[in-house]
Amino acid sequence: MDFSIPADLQDLSSRIGEFVRQEIVPLESDPRWGSHGPSEEFRLELVGLARARGLLSPHVRREFGGLGLGHFGRAIAFEAAGYSMLGPIALNCAAPDEGNMHLMAEVADARQQDRWLRPLANGSCRSCFAMTEPMGAGSDPGLLETTAEQVPGGFRISGRKWLITGAEDAGFIIVMAKQAGGEKDGAATMFLADMDQPEIILERQLDTMDSSFTGGHWVMRFDNLFVPDQDVLGAVGEGFRYAQVRLAPARLTHCMRWLGSAVRAQDIARDYATRRTAFGKPLVEHEGIGFMLADNDMDIYSARLAIWHTAWVLDQGGRGNMESSRAKVICSEAVWRVADRCVQILGGLGLTRDTVVERIFRDIRAFRIYDGPSEVHRWSMARRIAGGKH
Amino acid sequence: MDFSIPADLQDLSSRIGEFVRQEIVPLESDPRWGSHGPSEEFRLELVGLARARGLLSPHVRREFGGLGLGHFGRAIAFEAAGYSMLGPIALNCAAPDEGNMHLMAEVADARQQDRWLRPLANGSCRSCFAMTEPMGAGSDPGLLETTAEQVPGGFRISGRKWLITGAEDAGFIIVMAKQAGGEKDGAATMFLADMDQPEIILERQLDTMDSSFTGGHWVMRFDNLFVPDQDVLGAVGEGFRYAQVRLAPARLTHCMRWLGSAVRAQDIARDYATRRTAFGKPLVEHEGIGFMLADNDMDIYSARLAIWHTAWVLDQGGRGNMESSRAKVICSEAVWRVADRCVQILGGLGLTRDTVVERIFRDIRAFRIYDGPSEVHRWSMARRIAGGKH
Amino acid sequence: MDFSIPADLQDLSSRIGEFVRQEIVPLESDPRWGSHGPSEEFRLELVGLARARGLLSPHVRREFGGLGLGHFGRAIAFEAAGYSMLGPIALNCAAPDEGNMHLMAEVADARQQDRWLRPLANGSCRSCFAMTEPMGAGSDPGLLETTAEQVPGGFRISGRKWLITGAEDAGFIIVMAKQAGGEKDGAATMFLADMDQPEIILERQLDTMDSSFTGGHWVMRFDNLFVPDQDVLGAVGEGFRYAQVRLAPARLTHCMRWLGSAVRAQDIARDYATRRTAFGKPLVEHEGIGFMLADNDMDIYSARLAIWHTAWVLDQGGRGNMESSRAKVICSEAVWRVADRCVQILGGLGLTRDTVVERIFRDIRAFRIYDGPSEVHRWSMARRIAGGKH
Amino acid sequence: MDFSIPADLQDLSSRIGEFVRQEIVPLESDPRWGSHGPSEEFRLELVGLARARGLLSPHVRREFGGLGLGHFGRAIAFEAAGYSMLGPIALNCAAPDEGNMHLMAEVADARQQDRWLRPLANGSCRSCFAMTEPMGAGSDPGLLETTAEQVPGGFRISGRKWLITGAEDAGFIIVMAKQAGGEKDGAATMFLADMDQPEIILERQLDTMDSSFTGGHWVMRFDNLFVPDQDVLGAVGEGFRYAQVRLAPARLTHCMRWLGSAVRAQDIARDYATRRTAFGKPLVEHEGIGFMLADNDMDIYSARLAIWHTAWVLDQGGRGNMESSRAKVICSEAVWRVADRCVQILGGLGLTRDTVVERIFRDIRAFRIYDGPSEVHRWSMARRIAGGKH
Repeated sequence: MDFSIPADLQDLSSRIGEFVRQEIVPLESDPRWGSHGPSEEFRLELVGLARARGLLSPHVRREFGGLGLGHFGRAIAFEAAGYSMLGPIALNCAAPDEGNMHLMAEVADARQQDRWLRPLANGSCRSCFAMTEPMGAGSDPGLLETTAEQVPGGFRISGRKWLITGAEDAGFIIVMAKQAGGEKDGAATMFLADMDQPEIILERQLDTMDSSFTGGHWVMRFDNLFVPDQDVLGAVGEGFRYAQVRLAPARLTHCMRWLGSAVRAQDIARDYATRRTAFGKPLVEHEGIGFMLADNDMDIYSARLAIWHTAWVLDQGGRGNMESSRAKVICSEAVWRVADRCVQILGGLGLTRDTVVERIFRDIRAFRIYDGPSEVHRWSMARRIAGGKH
Repeated sequence: MDFSIPADLQDLSSRIGEFVRQEIVPLESDPRWGSHGPSEEFRLELVGLARARGLLSPHVRREFGGLGLGHFGRAIAFEAAGYSMLGPIALNCAAPDEGNMHLMAEVADARQQDRWLRPLANGSCRSCFAMTEPMGAGSDPGLLETTAEQVPGGFRISGRKWLITGAEDAGFIIVMAKQAGGEKDGAATMFLADMDQPEIILERQLDTMDSSFTGGHWVMRFDNLFVPDQDVLGAVGEGFRYAQVRLAPARLTHCMRWLGSAVRAQDIARDYATRRTAFGKPLVEHEGIGFMLADNDMDIYSARLAIWHTAWVLDQGGRGNMESSRAKVICSEAVWRVADRCVQILGGLGLTRDTVVERIFRDIRAFRIYDGPSEVHRWSMARRIAGGKH
Repeated sequence: MDFSIPADLQDLSSRIGEFVRQEIVPLESDPRWGSHGPSEEFRLELVGLARARGLLSPHVRREFGGLGLGHFGRAIAFEAAGYSMLGPIALNCAAPDEGNMHLMAEVADARQQDRWLRPLANGSCRSCFAMTEPMGAGSDPGLLETTAEQVPGGFRISGRKWLITGAEDAGFIIVMAKQAGGEKDGAATMFLADMDQPEIILERQLDTMDSSFTGGHWVMRFDNLFVPDQDVLGAVGEGFRYAQVRLAPARLTHCMRWLGSAVRAQDIARDYATRRTAFGKPLVEHEGIGFMLADNDMDIYSARLAIWHTAWVLDQGGRGNMESSRAKVICSEAVWRVADRCVQILGGLGLTRDTVVERIFRDIRAFRIYDGPSEVHRWSMARRIAGGKH
Repeated sequence: MDFSIPADLQDLSSRIGEFVRQEIVPLESDPRWGSHGPSEEFRLELVGLARARGLLSPHVRREFGGLGLGHFGRAIAFEAAGYSMLGPIALNCAAPDEGNMHLMAEVADARQQDRWLRPLANGSCRSCFAMTEPMGAGSDPGLLETTAEQVPGGFRISGRKWLITGAEDAGFIIVMAKQAGGEKDGAATMFLADMDQPEIILERQLDTMDSSFTGGHWVMRFDNLFVPDQDVLGAVGEGFRYAQVRLAPARLTHCMRWLGSAVRAQDIARDYATRRTAFGKPLVEHEGIGFMLADNDMDIYSARLAIWHTAWVLDQGGRGNMESSRAKVICSEAVWRVADRCVQILGGLGLTRDTVVERIFRDIRAFRIYDGPSEVHRWSMARRIAGGKH
């Protein structure tokens, strides 16, 4: 049992923290960070800043230009990056790219890694991940309707996807589709495809509560898109299994990044509460405010320990399904409470974009839903508990 | 003891409900409803629709063209109007105008009522209310810094105001300022002033979480603005007392309108949960979802009863300070929980502007802060409880 | 819409309040109030005190010696009585007798009313209600296992019942049993029976968290008990319907009584918080304490309004199923939070029986379970909401 | 960073778990475990069982006959022991003895350790700790009223103490008193004293919600008790500092033991929910129940991680004031929620002593108050946060 953080990770955390505070935070008011996320141009500029500091892609293997961190290392690095919502974008470890890199590192073949993972890993392009559909194939994969018809030399993909993050300006896409007919009828497969094809149609950009994902969220359509056999990601019919390979760690890296944002919100709220006066004393000397800061502290602490433990389990080679579900619910709800209390502490100011807390609040709300709503994870945990598998 | 709603109010409620569903809800996707609220042009169009139905200004005395409802009548009418966030705007009973009309009906003299209340009451202009300041003179009135210097024939007002709702395109303003020097040094007074004066400077429109107030929220400045004696609202030095006259009922009408929005969110969530399927059965048959709908129902019910009771107390001539504080906290927190649960029930859809729930959620969050944050009301209630005055 | 309380009810409330404060509260430390409830001897003494004041059986028709109150009247009277947990016992309006009286007034025939309701109504005997069974036939009536075999002239009842409140020293019992065989196989029927029969066996008194029910809670058995046809309560096969007749109002009277206890706990906590000092000022001037008192106040208020409204619905002749489920959940959870906060405010003292708060806390915890656990009511409400029936 | 548990501790945990399940759990229904805790005779029997297994006093240095565990080792061992509330009593690591042993190991001199710590460490006697007073000198030490008057050769102690746990049948006591007059007027000192002295008067045993402390809780009085200089514990005037030495770890060991009880409650609730059926399926397949089990799991997990981390900080030599406050609030509130949900899952059964959950529930409620109520810890944390010291 040892809670100490290795010196190299402490150092990395300091360097990321310094970078974020010095170079990224001042850019938070850049108008290129709009209501549908930072623009691609802005993103490239941010990535350039991190690259110049040698901080790019902490989670990526060194051979692909990253820092080669394991899960616990990511916990340390991503929390530091998340201190600004633009930090993970700068470090090229934001969703959905970070999860896609992880997935491709695990299941893509050498050719695919060379063609798609390499530019993604060095931040020169973005990717998206198309699983969720209008009728619900997100939480419940059984509802998948997009089809992949086997044709000579490959597959023809058709169907509509929904809430596809980062679709605009992405270089390529990973699509989940269900085999229609044939021997593997109903089996789900993942496919890689360049985005600049006429059969991939971006129908509509969604207006959403959150605003930190580059490229925003889209409704999109595949209109008989041909994907050659060599662009199947991993093996045919293994789509759902790969989704799990991607999801458990991806869920956890979301937790890491949002934890950083919660720490930021708490810092802003604490500073305000110590500076600002009401009814004759600093806000922080009102128990009503002080208790909220203390609750925030406990929530941040509990979230961090859950992340660290789950990362450690993954680093030990565990699949961490129970742990990552648990960490996802604990963290997403903890950071949500933190953000909500920070808005409350800031009062009227908290409702304005004069601090970044307002944005954190809206973005963090979304995290109780994506990567599995709390209810789905609770149910999945309940079944494990009932079965004694935990 | 009688919980029945008089037939005329039931009828009015039905008519408003029908109007909102038929004419207002379809306009919710009008692009003129932007992130800083509906435009003035759009507002005038909405007002025209309500006027055509004879539903304008339900809270205003008949002599000024309204429907002459008391507090309980408003509870019924405003909830029905609030079913769309644009409903109260159409009916000319949105904040801050509605509270300003109430205040002016109570304390303005006949000339002032004729000049400012009349056009406000018939919806042809808007008003704003300038009390809150950058350093906090909202929750804690002791922090008021804007000054009114007595000069021959009137006052010279200087100072900065903050979060002033609806300042853009408003016809006139009610300003709270503190007498500087003289016999009444430090006493607060309210002043009426037309907005089109060069000494009234709109400095900056704030980007805010909410988006339902026409004209948005502003930082503004008074730069030695002259207000003649006859434009003092009520008596000199009575500003804080008038603020109470305005606030208790204004707080309650906010509750009424937001209750309508909570009912709307619940309807949308319930419809979705009955239509949509996950894991082999309609969402609503999952206890996790069903319980949320039940909790929403209880919150809506408790909020409504608190509003009705408080309105009844006001109708009996009570000042209702304890009741309106209590109702404000009960309702603002109840409707907030409702909105939050509805987002969760809708899942990914709840995060998008494809339903109005996303907007309700953001707007309702603000209500836990304005018109007195929950903490200030809890403290005020605690002192009454401690003193046995409740 | 009228929230005023008629003068006669206000007067009754005052008289009950005075009685409880003067005569009942001082008896709360009587050792005859043990961990299994007050003894029968003590109960009779308490009943005698209320009888002397003319306050006995407020809910019972005048012809049976009661005060003839409707549901709203009971709301006023029972809250006042509940200020001491011994108050409802003194006034002969405690559970399960009060619910049994209500049921018998509705469905018993004249002979049965004369024989069993009359002595129950005047407080000279007690009754019990045997529905719940060890395997769960409480929340889910489908699990009923006790059988009633039709035999010449009546029925033979066999089965085990569980958590039967007040079984010891009760004069008679109402038993729910399921017809075994015959035309009405499976239909549930209610039976009346005197307790002093050898075929009724009290097996074991349960040690329970609560301690306010006279006679405690028992595991009991019917061992081929003969009940003549004339002692069927109402009609054969109508047991479940009668259970509803009994339950909706019985649930609500529990709310009324526990509301009184919550008010008591709040009074004790407030008095302590105003008298007691910590860290240089009275407890009540600490926001952490003041906020709890304010939250208690809001919970008490919301619970009371829900009770009043539901009672009004019942007085109008409504079945009030939705309302009574809602009121049950709202009240049981609200008074529970109140009791929990009061323990916390009292600190170490709250953990001791030096104040009655400790007992209220334990008894009120049980109310989230009996008469339908919160989860069952939430589910029942959800189905109504989904079906649009609310 | 390493979350693995050393093999020897894993083994110890297994042995304790086995011991508790095999030998202690069956004794939970022993009538000698009454409402004021287990009797001294019963305690000695329990201690004998643990001694026979070589499991006595895990926290005590080997030279005094213990197992010599550090803080993290205690976390593992005490959680396992706490699986039965009688487990820590058997292992001689229950409060207040365990905290007293810790304190005496730190500050008592060799003679004192030999005379008092040795028999305490081997379980042949018990001790008590007298700090709390009727007027509040628990949370707020400034309120201490018990006096120690310096007299030739020692001190004369007078005053009343309240909620003194385990006073009955204790062999000795540690008393906190405030110097009256003299150079060190007002300074607090701790004194050791044998209990069998006529100047130590047990006035009254308190009836309390909890029932797991041997000897119960007492109001007691010191009536001019003489304590010779050599029985001052540590140095004169260091009482408050020693209280901190005792409290931070003592708080944490409470967390460890109650965590074990929460695990037990969860096991009982899960077993019930998998066995028991309602509305046509096992309880656990109802989301309402499953979600509660999942929430319990998350609470247990968060509490455990907070304990482990805090123990690690203490093992590193940190004072752990922030950590132990945080862990105390996190754990006491988490295990409380677990116990409350378990009662709810068990339904009517949860209200009876037929499972130990009812007792756990009542005992755990007390833990939100003793060793610093949540409010005091939140406030203390808030001040550290405000000061940037965390």
